[in-house]
Amino acid sequence: MSSADSSDAPTKSALKKAAKEAEKAKKKAEKAAKAMEAEQARAAADEDYSVGRYGKLPMHQSQSRQNRERIDISTLTAQNDGTRVLVRARIQTSRLQGNKMVFLNLRQRTNTVQALMSVTKDTISKQMVKWAGALADESIVLVEGDVKKSPEPIKSASVSEVEIHILELWLLSGIESRLPFSLEDASRSETAPEVEGQFNRVLLDTRLNNRVLDLRTTTNQAIFKLQHAIGNLFRDYLNANGFIEIHSPKLQGSATESGASVFKVDYFKGNAYLAQSPQLAKQMAIAADFERVYEIAPVFRAEDSNTHRHMTEFVGLDLEMAIEEHYHEVRDLIDGMFKAIFEGLREKYAHEMAVVRQQFEAEEFKWKEETPVLTFKEAVNLLVEDGVDREVLDDINTENEKRLGRIVRAKYDTDYFIVDKFPLALRPFYTMPDPEDPTLSNSYDFFMRGEEIMSGAQRIHDPDFLCEQMRTKGVDPDSMKGYLDGFRLGCPPHGGGGIGLERVLMLFLKLNNIRRASLFPRDPKRLEP
Amino acid sequence: MSSADSSDAPTKSALKKAAKEAEKAKKKAEKAAKAMEAEQARAAADEDYSVGRYGKLPMHQSQSRQNRERIDISTLTAQNDGTRVLVRARIQTSRLQGNKMVFLNLRQRTNTVQALMSVTKDTISKQMVKWAGALADESIVLVEGDVKKSPEPIKSASVSEVEIHILELWLLSGIESRLPFSLEDASRSETAPEVEGQFNRVLLDTRLNNRVLDLRTTTNQAIFKLQHAIGNLFRDYLNANGFIEIHSPKLQGSATESGASVFKVDYFKGNAYLAQSPQLAKQMAIAADFERVYEIAPVFRAEDSNTHRHMTEFVGLDLEMAIEEHYHEVRDLIDGMFKAIFEGLREKYAHEMAVVRQQFEAEEFKWKEETPVLTFKEAVNLLVEDGVDREVLDDINTENEKRLGRIVRAKYDTDYFIVDKFPLALRPFYTMPDPEDPTLSNSYDFFMRGEEIMSGAQRIHDPDFLCEQMRTKGVDPDSMKGYLDGFRLGCPPHGGGGIGLERVLMLFLKLNNIRRASLFPRDPKRLEP
Repeated sequence: MSSADSSDAPTKSALKKAAKEAEKAKKKAEKAAKAMEAEQARAAADEDYSVGRYGKLPMHQSQSRQNRERIDISTLTAQNDGTRVLVRARIQTSRLQGNKMVFLNLRQRTNTVQALMSVTKDTISKQMVKWAGALADESIVLVEGDVKKSPEPIKSASVSEVEIHILELWLLSGIESRLPFSLEDASRSETAPEVEGQFNRVLLDTRLNNRVLDLRTTTNQAIFKLQHAIGNLFRDYLNANGFIEIHSPKLQGSATESGASVFKVDYFKGNAYLAQSPQLAKQMAIAADFERVYEIAPVFRAEDSNTHRHMTEFVGLDLEMAIEEHYHEVRDLIDGMFKAIFEGLREKYAHEMAVVRQQFEAEEFKWKEETPVLTFKEAVNLLVEDGVDREVLDDINTENEKRLGRIVRAKYDTDYFIVDKFPLALRPFYTMPDPEDPTLSNSYDFFMRGEEIMSGAQRIHDPDFLCEQMRTKGVDPDSMKGYLDGFRLGCPPHGGGGIGLERVLMLFLKLNNIRRASLFPRDPKRLEP
Repeated sequence: MSSADSSDAPTKSALKKAAKEAEKAKKKAEKAAKAMEAEQARAAADEDYSVGRYGKLPMHQSQSRQNRERIDISTLTAQNDGTRVLVRARIQTSRLQGNKMVFLNLRQRTNTVQALMSVTKDTISKQMVKWAGALADESIVLVEGDVKKSPEPIKSASVSEVEIHILELWLLSGIESRLPFSLEDASRSETAPEVEGQFNRVLLDTRLNNRVLDLRTTTNQAIFKLQHAIGNLFRDYLNANGFIEIHSPKLQGSATESGASVFKVDYFKGNAYLAQSPQLAKQMAIAADFERVYEIAPVFRAEDSNTHRHMTEFVGLDLEMAIEEHYHEVRDLIDGMFKAIFEGLREKYAHEMAVVRQQFEAEEFKWKEETPVLTFKEAVNLLVEDGVDREVLDDINTENEKRLGRIVRAKYDTDYFIVDKFPLALRPFYTMPDPEDPTLSNSYDFFMRGEEIMSGAQRIHDPDFLCEQMRTKGVDPDSMKGYLDGFRLGCPPHGGGGIGLERVLMLFLKLNNIRRASLFPRDPKRLEP
């Protein structure tokens, strides 16, 4: 045992070695501890403390109802500084700044607001910022944030006084395919010069093929708000003047009215035809004592015209009224209605009109308190004075209509005027001739920026004379028995007119193509979407 | 010569004879003079001193304009006693009293007034009275006369305080064929007992074949004023709630939506189809950020149904809106809209409603400030409690709908209620399932007098889930690419509904047949007039 004891006794060198190793182990442990600490620090730094503040929401199935208000960004001003808001909006564009900050341009219809977030201890993690920066344009998000007054006006957004500092950001509806074009491109001015390689214009056909996206531009949001406004102003004026709204059938038993082509429909075992206008129905409503009627409804034209101003289906604003003494009662009422529409747009829709003008530059539409009325003869004389050959002026064609528009604008300073007393030969069979000159008629057209927007007249209410005129124009009275019967049972003198809603909208805003004034336009080559 | 003189000398007898003859001649002359006097007196008595006060006017061609006011008879009260008026009206009926007096019942839309004239020296000749008495019912006349307060209320006219004493009477538009029925017959109460030989009822088909005449009854004038009112109240409510009106095309490139049949149209060298509803278009408008939209437009259904409540073309009142938290936002808004319509009718159209009730007797339509909402399950339970076999209640058929209407009326004292949470299997592919029970859906129907008047739901806005549901219901997603594309580019949660205008009108007034609520109804057998 002693020998073992003696052999186990430490030597000086051994002691030294042990001390060295202990020192080493200590250092190693210290290093490990430090590494662990660093690791922990790193882990702490990477922890996503924003969980529960952002992400994709489950599909909205009306899971709950909390009645929390969501705000309309157009109402935000500096006065809202410091308030907390909840906003549903599209991401128009997003921009990451480094990896600590993101700017979102949020859009609601014709308005945009700037929203932003930056990495903030305990609230906004870098993961959250990164996720926000990666959201596709056109995503729909739900944003909670604080409104902050901006030190200087924000030029990139329509809401310029404030921005939103994001606290929560939720994806409500994502984008599942590549955008066919950006809304920025689709919203560019149509008149600004295009610089090579700088930006793209979006062709009308591309827009129409992707109409849902195209309709989201602030321009289109404004255009269709104005379309809505015109319909409402039309109705309000007529309601206030004792009219009632009717709804006449678009399915007809026979192809009525001469001239324009009609669409044929398979109708059970026979055929039906789509109404080209509510002309006959609204006249029958007058024979039925409705006195003053209007209708807003689709009108169908099977004409293979591929112009800037023809569609196969458009919205007709039609009206018809009994006449007491003179058809000018009708002409004057329609004139009053147009002026009420123009005034209503100017007074209540200045914002929308300004939005449209950013893309479609145009001189503001001009009209006079007293609308100039030319007779057809006077209009012809103006054109002749301007150098047009009188020989070609039996009718005024589209080109000469535009020329007349320019002449009238120069002479009367108006984009809106009336031509009265058209030659009878140019009008449909149901037009009442002038009482003195049988080659003229009690009819009128209304013009905007040199294009016809409404055609109307006193109609023939006498059934025998109507039959006579039908035969003169090659229409068989037997083919229109139901219509004629109405007059045989007594009908007051009456007149009216028909307006193309999209045409008024196009010309008022100078959109240059009627398809831009139609939600989902239809022409001989387009039935989709 | 003397012999001749002597022979010519008169004898006594000859003188006597001559004197006698002279006497005779004198008497004859006197007689002749007397006869002539009598003749002159007779002629004087027969002279038509009313020429220039009556007769048929030349065809109205707007020969002149005098700006003379013509009055609305509904404005006449005892306060107008003694005033001279000019009136254009129909002769509803006329009655000659002897050959010296004539009574005319004059009609303007829903109102009538008594007018009369009697032979008066220097002004009203017997010829004029005779002519007036011979004017056909339904002739349109221009009457000038003096308003006279009536000593007692006139029961045969709606204007009861006054009558018009005619000074001039002009025929503006005559009747050129026999009336197929009298307006008196056409206006009789539908519920009054019919006494053999006493009067005729006019069959609905006869009315519709002669719709222009039929529409002139005060009942129909009131019905279509109420139709106009419903449309306006619908619009006013939605406009006030941030909606905009859209116009979507009725011509479609493909036969969309499963189930109901569509009409096929010859479209140049191909085919088009008539939209069965604006469902897809209004959803696309939501995907295009319109937020809240409505449309009033014809809807076409190629269903060979010949019932009291089906037509092949009717007027759809459609709406669609983005949802914030819950689809009940939509359900509640539609509920508010219906109540606004009912209230608007009650407040502003009491006269028209009373006019209709004279022909279509019905208990006044009842609704509650708080509309009862049943779940589909609760509705089924109510029917089971009432004795219906639960086995047949996978769906609620028309008969059981009516029964449910009676049960709800007895229990809640209302003709108007909502059923919510329909089984998913009963609804179209685009309906959002309930978040908890996948056999149910976020959908609702609205009922009036036990008939469904509106169907609506939250729609699926998620494109992948929508494709999945399409396939489940046998719809090929590729056939609806344009529609799906809208959702692929991000679409907010949304819901809406569609209402049949004529159905609301029919049920509110209890007209019992939808054709009575349509101006010129269309069904599988009727395309005219």
